[in-house]
Amino acid sequence: MTKDADHPANPPGFDGRMIFSGPKALKLDSGEIIDPLTIAWCTWGKLDAAHSNAILICHALTGDQYVAATNPQTGKPAWWPMMVGPGRTFDTDRYFVICANVIGGCMGSSGPATINPATGEAFGLSFPVITIADMVRAQAILMDHLGIERLLCVAGGSMGGMQVLEWAASYPERVVSAIPIATAARHSAQNIAFHEVGRQAVMADPDWEKGRYAALGKQPAKGLAVARMAAHVTYLSEQALQRKFGRNLQDRAKLSFGFDADFQVESYLRHQGASFVDRFDANSYLYITRAMDYFDLAAAHGGHLANAFRNTKTRFCVVSFTSDWLFPTSESRRIVHALNAAAADVSFVEFATDKGHDAFLLDEPEMFATLSRFMQSVADRAGLRDAAP
Amino acid sequence: MTKDADHPANPPGFDGRMIFSGPKALKLDSGEIIDPLTIAWCTWGKLDAAHSNAILICHALTGDQYVAATNPQTGKPAWWPMMVGPGRTFDTDRYFVICANVIGGCMGSSGPATINPATGEAFGLSFPVITIADMVRAQAILMDHLGIERLLCVAGGSMGGMQVLEWAASYPERVVSAIPIATAARHSAQNIAFHEVGRQAVMADPDWEKGRYAALGKQPAKGLAVARMAAHVTYLSEQALQRKFGRNLQDRAKLSFGFDADFQVESYLRHQGASFVDRFDANSYLYITRAMDYFDLAAAHGGHLANAFRNTKTRFCVVSFTSDWLFPTSESRRIVHALNAAAADVSFVEFATDKGHDAFLLDEPEMFATLSRFMQSVADRAGLRDAAP
Repeated sequence: MTKDADHPANPPGFDGRMIFSGPKALKLDSGEIIDPLTIAWCTWGKLDAAHSNAILICHALTGDQYVAATNPQTGKPAWWPMMVGPGRTFDTDRYFVICANVIGGCMGSSGPATINPATGEAFGLSFPVITIADMVRAQAILMDHLGIERLLCVAGGSMGGMQVLEWAASYPERVVSAIPIATAARHSAQNIAFHEVGRQAVMADPDWEKGRYAALGKQPAKGLAVARMAAHVTYLSEQALQRKFGRNLQDRAKLSFGFDADFQVESYLRHQGASFVDRFDANSYLYITRAMDYFDLAAAHGGHLANAFRNTKTRFCVVSFTSDWLFPTSESRRIVHALNAAAADVSFVEFATDKGHDAFLLDEPEMFATLSRFMQSVADRAGLRDAAP
Repeated sequence: MTKDADHPANPPGFDGRMIFSGPKALKLDSGEIIDPLTIAWCTWGKLDAAHSNAILICHALTGDQYVAATNPQTGKPAWWPMMVGPGRTFDTDRYFVICANVIGGCMGSSGPATINPATGEAFGLSFPVITIADMVRAQAILMDHLGIERLLCVAGGSMGGMQVLEWAASYPERVVSAIPIATAARHSAQNIAFHEVGRQAVMADPDWEKGRYAALGKQPAKGLAVARMAAHVTYLSEQALQRKFGRNLQDRAKLSFGFDADFQVESYLRHQGASFVDRFDANSYLYITRAMDYFDLAAAHGGHLANAFRNTKTRFCVVSFTSDWLFPTSESRRIVHALNAAAADVSFVEFATDKGHDAFLLDEPEMFATLSRFMQSVADRAGLRDAAP
């Protein structure tokens, strides 16, 4: 496999947003309504005449719609360029690839940073709490707008994988194939615990101002950085941290006997925290982590996960990684068992890696090869020609 | 095994402190000196005429000297009453049990909360950074004061286990037997990472005031609570969290669609954070986590852990727990391998439990039975009579 740098990301064919209102507004699980609803998204490739080659990519907690292009707002590189592009698993010469910013997010879709026209300041905590199902419902509104009745594939990792599962459960007729990666059908107690630590770190920052920081010209930068640091540790495996950093010192030969970043791993984490606050909204972090905590697909289907997939015709390829302790393979197995109980068409692959949860975003040639073969098979069965018209 | 509540902790035979100065002051690894040095400690049982029945218990990060009695300052119950007391593994009818507050701590021994006579306010960050070896050196000064040349056993879990290893390495002639529990001979990159998250949480709190909070009548309570919450998650296993809390809601039938503690695990963590700040000093948290991060027994012995135990006559019983992911069994195995390479007398037991790192503090009957047998054997070989004189 060649390196990431050899594959510059492709500019999107579309990068913009649209406002949906009235009958197209978004009804939420909480009972509230987002009206108007703004959705920001990007596309790559061309939709074929039959509207049969559309693939929806769902992003993770701190991701965005720039799956295969640099984010022009933050300058952050594409987050999945090895999976989406010409000749890639999600081949933009062949498929029409869509990625939308989740609602609750901060890259253009409706979220707590959206300006409330009634007050002239950001909604903040007056934005309604949203769920993974709400995110998916918003994406379905977008698919209706784009004239896409059926998605050839819905794919994503981590929170993206939760959306994949929710799509398959809520809109089984609209999902030809589904690739949930490094994810779970519910947030565990430990998952919730780590998210709560992050939220409390944000809320402990006096500059959070009960969510009104933007109107007051402030930002809870220190609290959000701590939240990101804590989360980041959970994205890496113990082995990866040991391999990358071990107990190596940062720019020094000896311990300082002080509280500077003596160790490389401290310096790395501080950098992760500091750079995150430049690109992410603190309230969005609260809302999106909350949506993940609330996710429990079995509970939403009478307590039986298999019920979520009853009579599904969707083809699934479930992916996990050996060293992922945030969404361990046991959670993927629960999904696979439920799919088997529902007599679904499911493949399951666990890839051996020491990269932890982050592996889904990294250079995993075996995953690329496996998922490329899966997509080829899905496209063949759907009767797709080899290239888009 | 009967429950904790059936075994009220015993009052200590001694509960006090002493000041050591001049030639008895403490020379630190950093090159600095703590003079005067205050050490606070408790004892249980009676020292025999030959001074041969003394056992030193080393406490963990947030522990104290009240191993078998309620802490009169905080009201917190004894932290190891099932291990220390009449008829227990460390039988106070038979042994003279000592536990001292570590230096850097906040329960009476010298630490950043100690008042600097030159300024009249707490030392804060002008207190020197200390190491595990410094903690042990302070305990050795105390043993000299008590007239105890040799310790029948040095035992402790987590950071207590680090002190046990350091005792065996630094004072091999003074340690008859050693019980390092749920510990490691070095802090891993992941261990350092979690500690750095906690320190940054404390330092991010504006009420920390660069460590001068006490003099200003403040306390970085929110930051310290977040640090404790993050750490607490690492003390429990994913299975234990799932078993104890799962996705159970706290005092409500439905999700609130808000940021209150909907889930029991959130409520539990918030309580852990809030109650911790009432009993622990924020600067002590910085200093003691730093000491743990700095611990690397192999590095201190030419890069070979076995060198730390060369020619040791100490008998070791190394203990780990299957679900401890903070100090996993692999770290105990490293210790055992090094002890074997040094031809040491070593037993190793891994106990099956889902309680995670915290298991060393909890009701683990197999551990109690195993360590009781180990202590009996150690006492027999040392020629101890069955009860103290």
